[in-house]
Amino acid sequence: MELKTKILKWGTGFPVAMLNKKTSDKIGINFGDRIIIKTFSKGHQEVSAITNTITKLIKINEIAVSSELKKQLGLKSGQKVEISLAPTPKSLNFIKKKLNKESLSQEEIDEIIKDVVENSLSEAEIALFISAMYKQGMSMKETIYLINAILDSGNRLGLKYKYMVDKHSIGGIPGDRTTPLVVSICAAAGLIMPKSSSRAITSAAGTADVIETIADVEFSMKKVREIVKKTNACMVWGGALGMVPADSKIIRIEKMLKIDPESQLLASIMSKKLAVGSKYILINISYGKTAKVDKKGALRLKKKFEYLGKYYKKKLKVVLTDGSQPIGNGVGPALELKDIIRILDQNKKGPKDLEEKALFLSANLLELSGKSKKGEGINLAREILSSGKAFEKFKQIINAQGGKLIEFKSAKFKKNILAKKSGRISEIDNKKISLLAITAGCPADKFAGLYLHKKKNHRVKKGEKIMTIYAESKSRLNEAVKFYEKEKPLKIK
Amino acid sequence: MELKTKILKWGTGFPVAMLNKKTSDKIGINFGDRIIIKTFSKGHQEVSAITNTITKLIKINEIAVSSELKKQLGLKSGQKVEISLAPTPKSLNFIKKKLNKESLSQEEIDEIIKDVVENSLSEAEIALFISAMYKQGMSMKETIYLINAILDSGNRLGLKYKYMVDKHSIGGIPGDRTTPLVVSICAAAGLIMPKSSSRAITSAAGTADVIETIADVEFSMKKVREIVKKTNACMVWGGALGMVPADSKIIRIEKMLKIDPESQLLASIMSKKLAVGSKYILINISYGKTAKVDKKGALRLKKKFEYLGKYYKKKLKVVLTDGSQPIGNGVGPALELKDIIRILDQNKKGPKDLEEKALFLSANLLELSGKSKKGEGINLAREILSSGKAFEKFKQIINAQGGKLIEFKSAKFKKNILAKKSGRISEIDNKKISLLAITAGCPADKFAGLYLHKKKNHRVKKGEKIMTIYAESKSRLNEAVKFYEKEKPLKIK
Repeated sequence: MELKTKILKWGTGFPVAMLNKKTSDKIGINFGDRIIIKTFSKGHQEVSAITNTITKLIKINEIAVSSELKKQLGLKSGQKVEISLAPTPKSLNFIKKKLNKESLSQEEIDEIIKDVVENSLSEAEIALFISAMYKQGMSMKETIYLINAILDSGNRLGLKYKYMVDKHSIGGIPGDRTTPLVVSICAAAGLIMPKSSSRAITSAAGTADVIETIADVEFSMKKVREIVKKTNACMVWGGALGMVPADSKIIRIEKMLKIDPESQLLASIMSKKLAVGSKYILINISYGKTAKVDKKGALRLKKKFEYLGKYYKKKLKVVLTDGSQPIGNGVGPALELKDIIRILDQNKKGPKDLEEKALFLSANLLELSGKSKKGEGINLAREILSSGKAFEKFKQIINAQGGKLIEFKSAKFKKNILAKKSGRISEIDNKKISLLAITAGCPADKFAGLYLHKKKNHRVKKGEKIMTIYAESKSRLNEAVKFYEKEKPLKIK
Repeated sequence: MELKTKILKWGTGFPVAMLNKKTSDKIGINFGDRIIIKTFSKGHQEVSAITNTITKLIKINEIAVSSELKKQLGLKSGQKVEISLAPTPKSLNFIKKKLNKESLSQEEIDEIIKDVVENSLSEAEIALFISAMYKQGMSMKETIYLINAILDSGNRLGLKYKYMVDKHSIGGIPGDRTTPLVVSICAAAGLIMPKSSSRAITSAAGTADVIETIADVEFSMKKVREIVKKTNACMVWGGALGMVPADSKIIRIEKMLKIDPESQLLASIMSKKLAVGSKYILINISYGKTAKVDKKGALRLKKKFEYLGKYYKKKLKVVLTDGSQPIGNGVGPALELKDIIRILDQNKKGPKDLEEKALFLSANLLELSGKSKKGEGINLAREILSSGKAFEKFKQIINAQGGKLIEFKSAKFKKNILAKKSGRISEIDNKKISLLAITAGCPADKFAGLYLHKKKNHRVKKGEKIMTIYAESKSRLNEAVKFYEKEKPLKIK
């Protein structure tokens, strides 16, 4: 049946189409059913969507589409589309195969990922896939199939340089914002580093959120190539590039279910690195009691990453770093950027732990790519930072991304947390610190978050300032302070 | 935040609320997020819903609710409600516990079921629960917890009679419409049989669909009690009674995923029987190559039902019956009802297999409840049927449900299927016969379906009529004929 598109600016979180009840009755579609929408433009794009029905607002010959669908099909108001009832996706059988402990082939995984991208699988069906991966596990062979499938479903950056490098941290450590520093140092040294980063999902800030406080991070693939050609690097949001659309959808459901199968974690990271196309890849795994992984888990992941690096013929190195407490002082988009600028600007004094970690990672990339000889990377990195070359490069990249360095304003409200007794800070809980910053309004409120005046093993006196919490509203601030009192993210012994 | 309800007649398949984008921004809610909606009426009902956002149509102080939500909260246009961001459901942790092979307690399963009923769990999260039950299995202890939890989440019929009986067939056999016959015979014999039935979900017809061709099947609990008091019985749609709301929601996702964990099957059936409150329960399991279960599966289920019967102190009997082919001649709501009336009306000739099966099941209930002595149930059942008392009782129940016997019209289009060669019918595939009737328009088109002129082991001559397909549109008929040619649900040897 042919219908005319009606654009509503209707955000649903997933692709939904609304039909007049009479239209849906006529073609035997019920609300909740899945339909296929086909365009008549070149390429005859088609995707699936969930049907809503309504008796008013939408005419009999109309179809209203959610913002997600409009974007996916590039629909315009009044555009004609063809709709039909969607068949049960074949890939559901493959998901059940995995659930029943059978191995999947490349073709079967391809079919699942294709159906994820085309919305042919519902949220419940994708949840079943995640559950099957989680419970039965995937072999390295299947993980590779998954990487290939995710990679094939999206765009590639398609740049070729001799010294193209990339870096990934598995995350989980608040304030651990090394990426802008590593990118600036490496790009200043002549390495090419097209860095695509994520936004925060369960943390207080992602690199994309941090950079967005002073520059744009959403660009087309074409524009990203231009920025990289001009500055050797970029710091953009990966989600806008459509490199791994399947991955984004799967991750959304994983976050909802709060489970994260290892095969999907490996596939998610590797497919992004491969889509960018860098030859030299550094993976940073921070481990600790309140980090994402403990030492044993870190070593197991390391082995798997190394295997995948070899398989895809990449020079890949995995470093294990200390994840026992937050890195730097600021937690939250703008507060983390302040730390970074205090490190880059040699007239200011930034947090030493963040600086040393960034230098260590930069040195590894310089040596891995052959820019530096073994053992000399750290000196080169330090020289580039202290000479101000890294700061110049940072400003150049920010500039190419339509931004500039500005003097930050502070959040509207703040509250100093004082030590209730004298002693030594014996523990800082990464997870609770993240939740505290989120409670204060991160990542949506860019200037919200917290500043750690004291770190682990520091001595404090009763009444001394140990932390400042920032928020954009009085109620958010109160909630954060309440959270602090209840959860006690810092321990004094 | 307080908002005014706007009613849209908006069907979504699950509870969705639409907010103006400005409203959602103000309270920090994004589309796809889950909110809690609370009413100010007595009892302060609250449920969760998925948020949609829109820039037009809905005012800043308004909330539009989907039909599902309207019904659940009994909302009226203009009614004030309070909304807030929903927290992550605690029960998600219990689902993950099961996924990790741990056992669940009564309290944990209660929490899961409560969250299913209140929409606090998303479809993806319910899918994870189903997957966990499917993969890890549930012990009989956990199955009992599940039954208790489902039972506690809904209403009970609350009638008490000495001879209150119930019957359940696990389904999967087309045309196997014994319920109206068993209900009529047993009620005429003085047993009390308040029968709540399902509508078709993956089959051509459920008992509720069949009865609905001549009477109402959706009643309030109060009205059902009145009908039972008047006629000893009823044949109503269980879904309208809210006896097991959790079960209906879980089943909807199971059908989407096409998996059906045994513990959920047991819990689903037992909780319904317990909500009705009958003391004598007959479970009919039809097994066969193309039935839901084979003989081994049937015996395993039998044991488990018997265990549950003992646990809940019910007189429960399980009978295993032949499920090797469809029962009766008609498949489809009206066509099945025709078979039933031909059996009840002693002036007509109905299908013998359906009649014998109904008498067998009736006899079992008569003996189980003590109405008949051992071995004498079949004679009493046969006497009630042949004397016309069962037909009288049937008409009385239909009458009490606002219906009456009418001469049926036929579907608009039909096509006779002729034997392509002479021989013996060696096989009739239950699943393919169901799909054929669905393709012809069942269960939505009440008069669509098929009529089997020949059954298994019957001899046919080339060119002889073996089946007639009925449909309400030419295109549906053509599709059904095409399906027949391709899938060959009957085999002639």
